[in-house]
This record gives sequence, structure tokens and C-alpha cells, in this order.
Amino acid sequence: MHEDEEVSGRVTLAAVAKEAGVSMPTVSKVLNGRTDVSRATRAKVEHLLEVHGYRRRAQAGSRSPLIELVFHELESVWAMELIRGVENVARENRATVALTESGTRHTPGPDWLPGVLQRRPMGVVLVFSTLREDVKRRLRAAAIPFVIVDPAGDPDPDVPSVGSANWAGGLAATRHLTDLGHRRIAIVTGPEDMLCSLARLDGYRSAMSMAGLECDPRLTRFGDFHVQGGYEHAMSLLDGPDRPTAIFAGSDLQALGVLEAARVKGLRVPEDLSVVGYDDVPLAQWSSPPLTTVHQPLRTMAEEAARMLVRPDDPGTGAQRIELATHLVIRQSTAPPRQS
Amino acid sequence: MHEDEEVSGRVTLAAVAKEAGVSMPTVSKVLNGRTDVSRATRAKVEHLLEVHGYRRRAQAGSRSPLIELVFHELESVWAMELIRGVENVARENRATVALTESGTRHTPGPDWLPGVLQRRPMGVVLVFSTLREDVKRRLRAAAIPFVIVDPAGDPDPDVPSVGSANWAGGLAATRHLTDLGHRRIAIVTGPEDMLCSLARLDGYRSAMSMAGLECDPRLTRFGDFHVQGGYEHAMSLLDGPDRPTAIFAGSDLQALGVLEAARVKGLRVPEDLSVVGYDDVPLAQWSSPPLTTVHQPLRTMAEEAARMLVRPDDPGTGAQRIELATHLVIRQSTAPPRQS
Repeated sequence: MHEDEEVSGRVTLAAVAKEAGVSMPTVSKVLNGRTDVSRATRAKVEHLLEVHGYRRRAQAGSRSPLIELVFHELESVWAMELIRGVENVARENRATVALTESGTRHTPGPDWLPGVLQRRPMGVVLVFSTLREDVKRRLRAAAIPFVIVDPAGDPDPDVPSVGSANWAGGLAATRHLTDLGHRRIAIVTGPEDMLCSLARLDGYRSAMSMAGLECDPRLTRFGDFHVQGGYEHAMSLLDGPDRPTAIFAGSDLQALGVLEAARVKGLRVPEDLSVVGYDDVPLAQWSSPPLTTVHQPLRTMAEEAARMLVRPDDPGTGAQRIELATHLVIRQSTAPPRQS
Repeated sequence: MHEDEEVSGRVTLAAVAKEAGVSMPTVSKVLNGRTDVSRATRAKVEHLLEVHGYRRRAQAGSRSPLIELVFHELESVWAMELIRGVENVARENRATVALTESGTRHTPGPDWLPGVLQRRPMGVVLVFSTLREDVKRRLRAAAIPFVIVDPAGDPDPDVPSVGSANWAGGLAATRHLTDLGHRRIAIVTGPEDMLCSLARLDGYRSAMSMAGLECDPRLTRFGDFHVQGGYEHAMSLLDGPDRPTAIFAGSDLQALGVLEAARVKGLRVPEDLSVVGYDDVPLAQWSSPPLTTVHQPLRTMAEEAARMLVRPDDPGTGAQRIELATHLVIRQSTAPPRQS
């Protein structure tokens, strides 16, 4: 069976070489991501490989003991948790993590793909990425499995991915506040164009509705997931007489901004204002007071993603989606509202 | 000249093979960190390579575009800054960062050295490490340059390293407090067995002395550089009538613990208590209030270390020590003491 596959693979490569009018070694160079092939030749060969449905047979022995981890940008409190998760699985498999920053549209990094194709890693964990079609094609042709860790909740239907339960997280955060007796509860969720922001907001709305509370549209804000955004929205929310008694801050960084706004306004947390974060990154337990927050299992998400790559069965065949549970961690930034 | 070196290298390898009673390919396997060599043979060959003073000629072309970054453990707010610095230099050189956690005495990780020898990276950045003699020997024999990023201020005299000015940092933190008019100033420095803790403490003592102030030994504490240690020492320091009006917390994490202790004690920062951190990791600007702290240029330290590896001239010849400057960043956790 394996021999048959190998023979059929060689037949395909020969056919591709012939149709492209190049030698077999050139086809092999394209497959291995070598740079000494012209762009035009590469494109022609890749197109034909796809037409012929060529997939290199995954051979565990031919792989480097590397797990690639590709970030858009490392400037995030999430990054360390994700690195930690991939590193855990790498260590279990006596492998090393190769870390690349791919850059964003605004700050493009180097093209990471040729390096990955040359190193022939066990697989690639991509953080938060939409992959170009040609990138998926080249990884598949090289039989390098890949998976997306997707905290934004916006999975590419075509690629295996690991996310977490954003709607349930938003619901749990808000129910905790309604259970404590809060009625004027504000939310600063993330950017309007991220599905995780919308899912958390919908969870908030459902919890408000379950508690028989109206959602005051003035108490719904879209932030940027950063400290400054949380600070500015909280300064405006806490201005005026009819201020909320609790803010669900949508991320731990936004919650830190809310804490600072409360301090500047002379409000004590949790006596005068309850605050709930989201993510449960390490700094959530170090803030003053320690944050009640929704635990998003970033490290476990990265572990799951890395495990999908190193499992003996081929994970690249189906576009599997794993969604891990979130849960509320109650610390000291929430309390019942004061009687007014 | 280069040819001569190469010839003399080959002669040495032949002599080593003969003396060890093994073949040239076996010597070559040892040099390349291959695992299919018995432990006894490896030890014998390595010993003879050292006796003969063999050093593989560094050949830029034969290196993988990888910079290895080896941590004892990734559980540190420093880790991300250091990764960021190495990643910056990797990107400039179209290279990738390979990340390994070597483990501590308490939690040993896999032996990272064979992987490094096999991958033949441009070089190795080690965080915070004392290197065993045989590890140095094997890296040198393989002509893989290495450098230590050493925030603890305890350099191996035999290895190039990058540190920062801990004494000057302790002095600057304390002078800021004496300049504000504080007289009862406590210090929670790091563990007693780390030179950086002692250097920061000596900087504190010199600043106190320069301001004509006595150091009250009850106000000098050795912490653990973590939040909990800062919290516990601050709870004890703030207990009683003759409490300090300012605490130099020795690290940002310890400073967060001090902030939490102040909150629990009902003391406002900076009105009732001034707090100075150390490190200036990102969370220092996100605390409430934002921390006045000593900036330890962790990212730049890692960049410098990585640059020592990729520079065209051989950095492995001298045991160079670079010490980068620290500077005080004044934010909102410090103010003059209240008139009592």
C-alpha cells in the first residue's frame, strides 16, 4: 500500500516535470522550498502539482524535530502563554520550537514559508491567521501539517483550528455580575470586526435578558483589547450620575484600564465598582485587586494545536475545529453593589 | 591562509581518529552531535579534540539560518522581552529563532545540546546560565558561537555576556525617593544569593548615605522577585506605627505585591506610600497607578547578545562583557511624603 503510494507519487512528479518542461530535480527543489528556482517556474510547477493532486507522503523520519510557531506579531500578553503551550508539546516530543514573526499588513515581516519548507518541521502552528490559498497549497504539497490557534473565533473553514467558547465566556462573566445583584452593567468588548468580540457581547446580552434586565446601548462599547481603550471607555462610562456599578471589560488589559480609571475617579474596586476581565493571563492575578476574569485556556489551546500536528494519524485531511471551554475565575474585583 | 587552516584541521581530525581508534566518519559524527555514537566513544573523541586544540573553522555558509535561544524556564515576565530582542535580530538577518527550555535543577528539561549541534545554528543565546565545561567545549569544537544574557549580574568569566548596570539602577531608584524628601525608605531586593540583588541593595545604601540617611536594617528585606514575596514583605513593613513612607521594591513583580499590600492596608499610592519597581516590563505601565521603575533594557540586552553571534568577526575568541545602562522611568507611584 505504502509502496503503491510512493510509486504513484513518483509517477506524478515525472508527469509534472514533463508538462512543466523542467527536470525532476527542479520539481524536487520547488517541493523543498529551495530559492534557486525562478518565480515563474515555481508557479508553473506548483500549479501542476495541484492539478495532479500531488501530496508528498508524510514521512516521520524525514522531518526535523521542530514545531514551527508563526505569529503575526509578538506584542501581546497572549504570546507567552501560546509559546508555553507549544513548548510543552515540543518538549514531550523531544523537539524544539522555531518561532517566526510573520508581520501584519502594516508591518510585514519576512516571508516565513520558504524557511519552513526548507526546515521540514513536524508541523506549523499559526496564531490568528488567515492563510493565503497558495500558502496552504504549498504546505499541503510538502506534506507539512498546519493548524491555526484562533482566539479571535474566526476560523478558516478549510484549516484545522483550535478556539475557545467566547459566547459562553461572555455569558458567565455577566451572570456572575447579575447574580451579585448588579443592574447597571456596562460592557467594553473588543473591536467590532472580530467575531470573538461579538460572541462575548451576545453572551452579555443573553445574561442580561435572562436576569430580566434591559441592555442600555450607552453602556455598550467597542474597545481595542488594550489598556488605553479600556481606560478611555471607563472614564466616559464613569462620568455622570447614572454610572454603571459593574463593567465587564472584555479583556484583562481593558480591565486594567478600567481599574486605573476607577482610581483616577476616586472609586474603590470592588466596593464602588465591580470589574470582570477576560483571558486570565498571568497579570490578572497580580493586579490590585486581583481580577475576577474569564479563563481562556490559551496555553491548552496551543498545546492542543501542537498535538494535532504530532499525532501519528494525519491531521491534515479534515478541517477539524476544536473549541475549548472557558470558565469564570472569581478573585477580588467583584462584589455586590452598594445599597444606594 | 584559510586553506592552511583547513588542511591543519583535517590533519588534526585524522590524528584524533587514530588515537581514539575510530574512523574519521565517527569523529565527524561526534562533531555534528549525532546520536549514533556510544557515550564512551564520544567522551574519548571530545577529550582528544580538546587536547589537540581542534576548532572547526566557522563557515557562514554551512550554518542554518537559526538563532538558538535557550531558557532555563520560560515562566518569567522577562522571557517575552528577551524573545522579542532575539527575534528582532533574527528578522534583520532573515533567520528564525529556535526556542528551547533547558529546565532547572528542579525540573530538568531535555538535553538541548545534541539538537543544537545537529541544527548548526548561527549561534546560541543562553539566558541566565552557568554552562558546564563540557558544554562549552562541545560548542567551541563545533564552532558554534554562544553568549549569555545575564540579568542576574553573575557572569561566567569565560563566556561573552550581556548584563546591565544593577548598582546604578538601585542608586537611581533610591535617589529619586530621597530627592522627593523621603527619609524612611525600605528596600525589598531579590534573593540573597544573586549578585544583582546585592548590587541593587548596595546602590540603595549608597544613595541613602549620600542623602545623609541611616539604613535601618529592619527596612532591608530579601525577596524572591515574585509578587507574593513583595506582598508579604510589604504587609510586614507596613505593620506598625513607624512604617516607611516609600518602598523600593527590587522588581516590578515585587512592586505589584507592594501595591496590593497597600490596598489591603487602606493606604493610597502614592499619597500614603511611594513605590519604585525594577525592570520596566510592560506590565509596569499598566498597573494602577502606573509604576515608577528602573528600566532594565532586557530587549536591547537580548538584541546585543544576538548581534554578537551574527557579526562577521568571530565573537567566540574573547570573553567580552557588555553592561548596558539602566535608567529611571518616573510614572505615578511616587510622590513627596505627606507632612506628618
